[in-house]
Amino acid sequence: MHFEALTTDLYELTMAASYFEHGLNGQATFSLFIRAYPPHRNFFVAAGLADLVEYLESFQFTSSDLDYLHSTKLFKDDFLDYLRTVRFTGRLMALPEGTIFFADEPILEIDGSLLEAQLLESVVINIINLQTMIATKAARVVQAAGGRRVVDFSLRRTQGIEAGLKVARSCYLAGYAGSSNVLAGKLYGVPVVGTMAHSYVAAYEREIEAYRAFVQSFPANAVLLIDTYDTVEGAHKAVKVGREMKERGQRLRGVRLDSGDLVTLSHEVRRVLDEGGFQEALIFASGGFDEYKVSEVLKAGAAIDSFGVGTKVGVSADAPYLDISYKLVMIEGRPVMKLSKGKKTLVGPKQIHRLSDSGGRFHEDILSLREEDVAGGEPLLRRIMDQGLRAAPVEALTDIRDRFQAQLKRLPRNMNDLEASVRYPVRLSEGLSSLQERVEQRIEERELGES
Amino acid sequence: MHFEALTTDLYELTMAASYFEHGLNGQATFSLFIRAYPPHRNFFVAAGLADLVEYLESFQFTSSDLDYLHSTKLFKDDFLDYLRTVRFTGRLMALPEGTIFFADEPILEIDGSLLEAQLLESVVINIINLQTMIATKAARVVQAAGGRRVVDFSLRRTQGIEAGLKVARSCYLAGYAGSSNVLAGKLYGVPVVGTMAHSYVAAYEREIEAYRAFVQSFPANAVLLIDTYDTVEGAHKAVKVGREMKERGQRLRGVRLDSGDLVTLSHEVRRVLDEGGFQEALIFASGGFDEYKVSEVLKAGAAIDSFGVGTKVGVSADAPYLDISYKLVMIEGRPVMKLSKGKKTLVGPKQIHRLSDSGGRFHEDILSLREEDVAGGEPLLRRIMDQGLRAAPVEALTDIRDRFQAQLKRLPRNMNDLEASVRYPVRLSEGLSSLQERVEQRIEERELGES
Repeated sequence: MHFEALTTDLYELTMAASYFEHGLNGQATFSLFIRAYPPHRNFFVAAGLADLVEYLESFQFTSSDLDYLHSTKLFKDDFLDYLRTVRFTGRLMALPEGTIFFADEPILEIDGSLLEAQLLESVVINIINLQTMIATKAARVVQAAGGRRVVDFSLRRTQGIEAGLKVARSCYLAGYAGSSNVLAGKLYGVPVVGTMAHSYVAAYEREIEAYRAFVQSFPANAVLLIDTYDTVEGAHKAVKVGREMKERGQRLRGVRLDSGDLVTLSHEVRRVLDEGGFQEALIFASGGFDEYKVSEVLKAGAAIDSFGVGTKVGVSADAPYLDISYKLVMIEGRPVMKLSKGKKTLVGPKQIHRLSDSGGRFHEDILSLREEDVAGGEPLLRRIMDQGLRAAPVEALTDIRDRFQAQLKRLPRNMNDLEASVRYPVRLSEGLSSLQERVEQRIEERELGES
Repeated sequence: MHFEALTTDLYELTMAASYFEHGLNGQATFSLFIRAYPPHRNFFVAAGLADLVEYLESFQFTSSDLDYLHSTKLFKDDFLDYLRTVRFTGRLMALPEGTIFFADEPILEIDGSLLEAQLLESVVINIINLQTMIATKAARVVQAAGGRRVVDFSLRRTQGIEAGLKVARSCYLAGYAGSSNVLAGKLYGVPVVGTMAHSYVAAYEREIEAYRAFVQSFPANAVLLIDTYDTVEGAHKAVKVGREMKERGQRLRGVRLDSGDLVTLSHEVRRVLDEGGFQEALIFASGGFDEYKVSEVLKAGAAIDSFGVGTKVGVSADAPYLDISYKLVMIEGRPVMKLSKGKKTLVGPKQIHRLSDSGGRFHEDILSLREEDVAGGEPLLRRIMDQGLRAAPVEALTDIRDRFQAQLKRLPRNMNDLEASVRYPVRLSEGLSSLQERVEQRIEERELGES
């Protein structure tokens, strides 16, 4: 992916200019975390790190960027000269993609000079927010489908083309079987899938002619869309075409429903298919699915074998953003925090330690200072970049997918309910609690009532 | 912007392959329209056309795209050879950006060979969906702010970096004063704006030192963020620093509140500023704003001069997608439609005619067949591309912005309520109604009960 250094909020640059002017460019640590769970989510699925590393590796202002900044008349020449040389030369500690994590836990921490680490803020948040939000949502759909195949059809209504690509990858990471997004197939190896559109049916004089033409082109993979005019009539036509295929030694793969009452229609269509001798033909369904609707139609006994899931997951419609922040937690060895109402932050560089029971199930996370000794837990934040260079190998998307599935099995059993709020225990270590308290006290003494 | 031809749904390609195999590549018309209003919206603001034209102009499969498609084993060689030569060579009729339009009205129509016009579907919808959705939302915020300045702070939590850029442009188009997104400044000339972050305050040992450092760097533009520790204390410190500025002949521009009860805090802060002699210092507010919250705090009498509006508008949180579709409406001179339950479409190439009263106020749109004579209305869909080439000049974003403001003034007065549903009258012409009826009848005769 191509990144532009000017993809940033203006204040990142004005703050940097001021730091530069005052020679304030000591070592800083910023921490990225999610404050609160969106409705019904009990955990998050880390995603976006691959892009983030690409961004950090390629971060650089071009001459035309600097010309533009010069034209704003906001910046002095010596600062623009400095910007020309800026690269990311720091360290990135992060959760590998596919890791399950919880509110308040750092997804990543960046150690670097104050200027560098500050300039990156907008894009760091943006990348992780989108991909983690979608992976988290998609994981719920897969769970709701209870083993049935789920594929991503969201491209047309994602919030941008880039979003469509990232959604396809994030959904696959979280357990989808594939995506309709062909570029995701090319770039990420996501299996590509698809059926046909209403326009294909409408392009022929008669619906059944469209079916005949399509199975001739794709005899092995044809899934016929049967709701353009009337779903049950469409099923009868599919049976007719399926019989013609049988005579040629071919097999009708299935049909797709995309509108109407999918529970009732799926039964009527199943009956038409079964009575026609097509017990093995699959019923695909699409149209407004998310984890809630998948769960609802399955509870109602819908005869659906596979779900095409689009917009509502592609934009995480019930929670289209995360309460995610990138906060300065240490500067020149001094731990810092923000006290703003309801937005308190945890000080200092940190580590997450995950404790499991004897059966291998996760039962508690301890959030500690980064270098603090915590007995028995597995440290989750890994060193991904050092001195601006990649310090960990690029991971295959299939490995990331496997990591998530493996972790999912180790979650406490009661956390799999799609609608109940279950809070996984995350405890602060002694070191972190006491530092937190000391810093809070120091700020209250210094800042409240001084002026 | 760089577009990839593989940004498409797989079925666009399999349908195209099947059309190709059957020599079905006659002239087709597709129509893009929105079926229904999101909650509280009474109109839409057309946006995205500039990108769409770029996409259509550059549409082309690369050798590596074709290699990838070959690797999927879904396509025959002669089709892939054909794809190598595909370009958009058709016509684009569209609403100019900034045009106000209504449900069921075509935002654009593409005339082209069936294959070309079909392959473009996913991206055509994607581009217009995002930008129109955001411009429509942003227009509401500007209205709620009643003349106060509104700026876009959404970049960090938009659904992708591309989305952030398009949001900045779409908000400006709809009347925002600027954006924090620096790339939007460089690429689109959107005025860039910004204040400071909590991390800037935290980077200094004391809050007041941070203020002093910042006003030294930006004496003409400093807006001090005062809620890092305590908002009212922050206001007192701002006054102190403002007085130091006065002595140097400088002027404190304002302060920003970003958390807490903004109504109460804005009054307390206003009082501190006024008593300190800073009646002219502005109060900026940010934090969770959208049209509802802007309207709410203003109704409650908040002393806020300017709004920084972020995530909730940047993702159109209350309606994060439009019910938008791209449908085949004519093929080889034969008008077609889809009958699926609740998703009926209007047949044939169309035109929108807008009728105004003697005072210049819009009072009715007539949706007609494209070539039908309709007396007295202004036709809204313009010829933007012909034979694959641009047929209308590129418009300046400021002109688009002006178009929207001019149209907004001509809307019926009762349509400006932010919470009431008011339906602007859109009537079908005689020609369109009767064609619609005939096609519906034809389909019912042919498709229902035939098998």
